[in-house]
Amino acid sequence: MNEFELIDLMVAELDDAARGVVLGPGDDGAVTRVPESCELVSSIDTLLADVHFPAAAAAQLVGYRAIMVCVSDLAAMGAEPGFALVALNLPEANGTWARGFAKGIANAARKVAIKIVGGNVSAGPLCVTVSAHGYVPLGQALTRGNARPGDVVFVTGSLGAAAAAVADGGLIDFQSAEDLSGPARRYFMPEARVEAGMALRGIASSAIDISDGLLQDLSHICVSSGVGAQLTEADIPVAHGVDLNLALNGGDDYELCFTVPAERADQLPALGVAATRIGLVRAEPGMELDGEPVSGSGYRHFEQ
Amino acid sequence: MNEFELIDLMVAELDDAARGVVLGPGDDGAVTRVPESCELVSSIDTLLADVHFPAAAAAQLVGYRAIMVCVSDLAAMGAEPGFALVALNLPEANGTWARGFAKGIANAARKVAIKIVGGNVSAGPLCVTVSAHGYVPLGQALTRGNARPGDVVFVTGSLGAAAAAVADGGLIDFQSAEDLSGPARRYFMPEARVEAGMALRGIASSAIDISDGLLQDLSHICVSSGVGAQLTEADIPVAHGVDLNLALNGGDDYELCFTVPAERADQLPALGVAATRIGLVRAEPGMELDGEPVSGSGYRHFEQ
Repeated sequence: MNEFELIDLMVAELDDAARGVVLGPGDDGAVTRVPESCELVSSIDTLLADVHFPAAAAAQLVGYRAIMVCVSDLAAMGAEPGFALVALNLPEANGTWARGFAKGIANAARKVAIKIVGGNVSAGPLCVTVSAHGYVPLGQALTRGNARPGDVVFVTGSLGAAAAAVADGGLIDFQSAEDLSGPARRYFMPEARVEAGMALRGIASSAIDISDGLLQDLSHICVSSGVGAQLTEADIPVAHGVDLNLALNGGDDYELCFTVPAERADQLPALGVAATRIGLVRAEPGMELDGEPVSGSGYRHFEQ
Repeated sequence: MNEFELIDLMVAELDDAARGVVLGPGDDGAVTRVPESCELVSSIDTLLADVHFPAAAAAQLVGYRAIMVCVSDLAAMGAEPGFALVALNLPEANGTWARGFAKGIANAARKVAIKIVGGNVSAGPLCVTVSAHGYVPLGQALTRGNARPGDVVFVTGSLGAAAAAVADGGLIDFQSAEDLSGPARRYFMPEARVEAGMALRGIASSAIDISDGLLQDLSHICVSSGVGAQLTEADIPVAHGVDLNLALNGGDDYELCFTVPAERADQLPALGVAATRIGLVRAEPGMELDGEPVSGSGYRHFEQ
């Protein structure tokens, strides 16, 4: 099986997840249209075997996770998913793996209504890069840079379950979505908070998705906005049975952390997921938890 | 040096090549606007160390090549370059390498007027994935699927020099753009034929960029269009001092191969590069060179 045969079988597996655009997979480029009066939001994310997922993990779960991780960035910008391109490096021409991977891609794409319009396949160490693109009305993208002192800090869902699944090991024991235990499901099948991001347009003053850990990701908002934050430990929505430390510093949850001006904080719109107040934005830089200074110590590539 | 410090130094090196969009690097996603009455053309390409470039090649040349290779796909669609995202896997946090890489990215981006709006850095085997996006007026994208019997087959520039540079070895001897010999320059600094692609809107019936070899890439046009082609050996624009075989089957030239209805073939617009007639489209599938059947035998991943 060569590169082109592999591509054909993956595109066949994508089925309707690759259709519905001006021109989908199969040419030098895909062609799409951005809805009128909208800006385009674009992000790229790489998932490397044995860094971002176990190399022996089920192909379908790797594909699903790759799409959700990248679409989560669109959610954090308040964007409606539009289309994605997927670049896969595969050590050998394994048609079974490629088919499972494409099935996972397609399932995730259907879940968040994004179209897979093209991609690339190379022979190399197992690695997936997804470039995802979405739409926001002009000027309404949620950024990291507009949090103001007094804004309320929120987080969606609960935190720490995905990191607990990684800490527990055993992620390679699952061969399909149906097999997944609760924490492993949070790891492999995060739910990009698209509905929440879109509902927060014009309401949230800043937003970020939690990929590297709550404290580290919130610190990005603080630095970008030139502010600080004070958090209350008892308010952190720690996932059931998980250590607080994993909820604060474990990555991979893909929940949203966002800030809302105080006068709007009591009347949030429906987000499709619970949102919990965890603290307040303050003028002074840095972050505090129950009055004690804390810093983001989540995942950073190249650090020991 | 950690991931975020590496990103900061690369974005600093990009300078103006990262500015001039609604929101550039530094948030969950970049924000851009598609020009009115235009469609968006999108492509993704991966360059792996020791597959698509020597691992020891100069970082600046790797960066330059990565952008041009992906923008070449935009050229083949007739698109005006808009913006790109760059995902880099780097084995170690080598600031010198990253800075050189970013410089190469920036130089290529300025050359073709594309903006680098975001990216991703991971610790892993050296690999670059570029997602490039451009604009075409509604319905004017050049595809592979509309070549018709009787159309004239053209190719831009000359073919085979990049493949000759690979065959000769020695690609790692060059540390900067200024050092490059002719063939190595063709390999590391291909010129995406953006001007040609844009000028051919509404004129060419099909187009493709030559990444895997003339015959293989032309065969993609033939299959997509349901036609064949007959070529004349003496008309192939073989690069100076290069074997015909490399011109037919060597990849990496990133010239355009395109077809034009016969009645337009004598009055091509200015393309910014020479274009040579090399044959005709025919109804019967398959390709012939001077009457003898030939098939595309260019590069295919996973084939021995």
